[in-house]
Amino acid sequence: MAVYTDISDSDLRAFLASYDVGGLISVIGIAEGVENSNYLLITDHGRYILTIYEKRVRREDLPFFLDLMRHLSRKGVACPTPVPARNGETLQEIAGKPAAVVTFLEGVWPRRVWVEHCQALGGALADLHLAGQDFPGHRANDLSIESFRPLFESSRPRADEVMPGLAEALDDELGVIEQRWPDDLPSGVIHADLFPDNVFFSDGHVSGVIDFYFACNDCFAYDVAICLNAWCFEADGDFNITKARNLLSAYRKRRDFSEQELAALPLLCRAAAMRFLLTRLHDWLHTPDDALVQPKDPLEYWRKLRFHRDVTGPGAYGLE
Amino acid sequence: MAVYTDISDSDLRAFLASYDVGGLISVIGIAEGVENSNYLLITDHGRYILTIYEKRVRREDLPFFLDLMRHLSRKGVACPTPVPARNGETLQEIAGKPAAVVTFLEGVWPRRVWVEHCQALGGALADLHLAGQDFPGHRANDLSIESFRPLFESSRPRADEVMPGLAEALDDELGVIEQRWPDDLPSGVIHADLFPDNVFFSDGHVSGVIDFYFACNDCFAYDVAICLNAWCFEADGDFNITKARNLLSAYRKRRDFSEQELAALPLLCRAAAMRFLLTRLHDWLHTPDDALVQPKDPLEYWRKLRFHRDVTGPGAYGLE
Repeated sequence: MAVYTDISDSDLRAFLASYDVGGLISVIGIAEGVENSNYLLITDHGRYILTIYEKRVRREDLPFFLDLMRHLSRKGVACPTPVPARNGETLQEIAGKPAAVVTFLEGVWPRRVWVEHCQALGGALADLHLAGQDFPGHRANDLSIESFRPLFESSRPRADEVMPGLAEALDDELGVIEQRWPDDLPSGVIHADLFPDNVFFSDGHVSGVIDFYFACNDCFAYDVAICLNAWCFEADGDFNITKARNLLSAYRKRRDFSEQELAALPLLCRAAAMRFLLTRLHDWLHTPDDALVQPKDPLEYWRKLRFHRDVTGPGAYGLE
Repeated sequence: MAVYTDISDSDLRAFLASYDVGGLISVIGIAEGVENSNYLLITDHGRYILTIYEKRVRREDLPFFLDLMRHLSRKGVACPTPVPARNGETLQEIAGKPAAVVTFLEGVWPRRVWVEHCQALGGALADLHLAGQDFPGHRANDLSIESFRPLFESSRPRADEVMPGLAEALDDELGVIEQRWPDDLPSGVIHADLFPDNVFFSDGHVSGVIDFYFACNDCFAYDVAICLNAWCFEADGDFNITKARNLLSAYRKRRDFSEQELAALPLLCRAAAMRFLLTRLHDWLHTPDDALVQPKDPLEYWRKLRFHRDVTGPGAYGLE
């Protein structure tokens, strides 16, 4: 569930009095999402999302995220736009926690991913990368390659509880990724967490990209690699090359991939799989049994990683 | 959280094709509620709630609940109205589970309860009781006095894990309630679960009563007793006599309490506290540690029960 902070109606009314969003009609806690608390606000002006930032988001990063969303939506990206309070600020506080009101986006995220979704996603991802190029903010990726080793060390002693031999296998794999990591790929602002539940579709096109709370500066192709992992594997673990081809082809129609990026793709996919494997492994081993949010299976990403490890060239992703 | 069934967008579109509710704009999982899965549907016709009935609701009871909501809303009670599918039926199926679409109600449920809420609630509860009087359906209360003993027995062996001496204290208390239970009070359809999160308010009046999935035939005063327990205690455990007076006075303005009902109120309040104590105790002892829904503290209702046990007359509830 995604309502960690239960706000009183009087707190909410006091909070909304500092906004020009109209009178409150309904407030509904949103089940989706795991990092922050989200409420749908229906007012006589329209629909808004109230996000209350919980402890996993650093307060000092919030201006970057909010400014980025404003920048991107001004550039035509369908993403939530922060609504400024009457004092002009987009970052406010409710119940002692940082909070923001953003615009509501129509559309439905795909519970099952089809080829058509991957194609639409590819174009939207390229547009996102292009629209962010002149964004002046900067935020280092705190889940980049440099973070992998310390994250792994925090789980290493108990990794074999999840699968015998996992600690050694991850150690080896990390060595390869660290050694071959390319430093000179085209970079800019990336979303870094573009899973299907963060992309809304309407009539076959992307009507909204949400949840920019992992956005950061890193190489564009790494964002593509995250999407290949998140969108192109079937529930049974098989890689769907048609989905990958459509995603990549649509991306490359809007923003061309350099030869360097293409050559780095298999390694970036391994690294992207490693990133989610390591955070899931950490959560798996460190989440108390009575936690509200169930940790996700880290081994799903171990299987994805193995697929990419065996890839010998971009042909495996449907490209010539 | 309250989304146990994740529906695919194609399932949802197929489901909605059998309704005349317009094209789907958004679907949002609702965090509130624990028994069923609820989604807010925004279509180009308006807003609806899709409820998917999970295993705690018996399928054979669903026509009673749906017919009751239709009856009550026709009588002017602000409650969800089932929307019939094109085939005229209100009970449908999605993802292999029974499901219904009902109208959306505006308003906000009170996270903090004020005296004014209790006053508005009292009137709405009386209206609900009056509106249900000519409802032809009948459903026995499966959490009535007869259920207490078997429910207690299922928890008795481990009750003292929650509080030393609890098993014996509950045994004694159950004996008193069983012995003194009044059989001849005015009865009809009651809501039986009218907690603050089931009542929406707008501009100080009750704009909606939801969640009729415990509704049944039982004595009206028992429903009042459930509300006194759920609405009139402060977070620190103190009973707020002003809230009780306002709730009861507003109720009695619409539907007068007989002398018998008044005299039975302290015992009914003990029984109502016992009902929630026993179900919470059962859930507390039988919920796996990794469950999505955290069980609620049974001792909250033990403390309420003790208050009512010491009551000597209706004066304790603010009545002369």
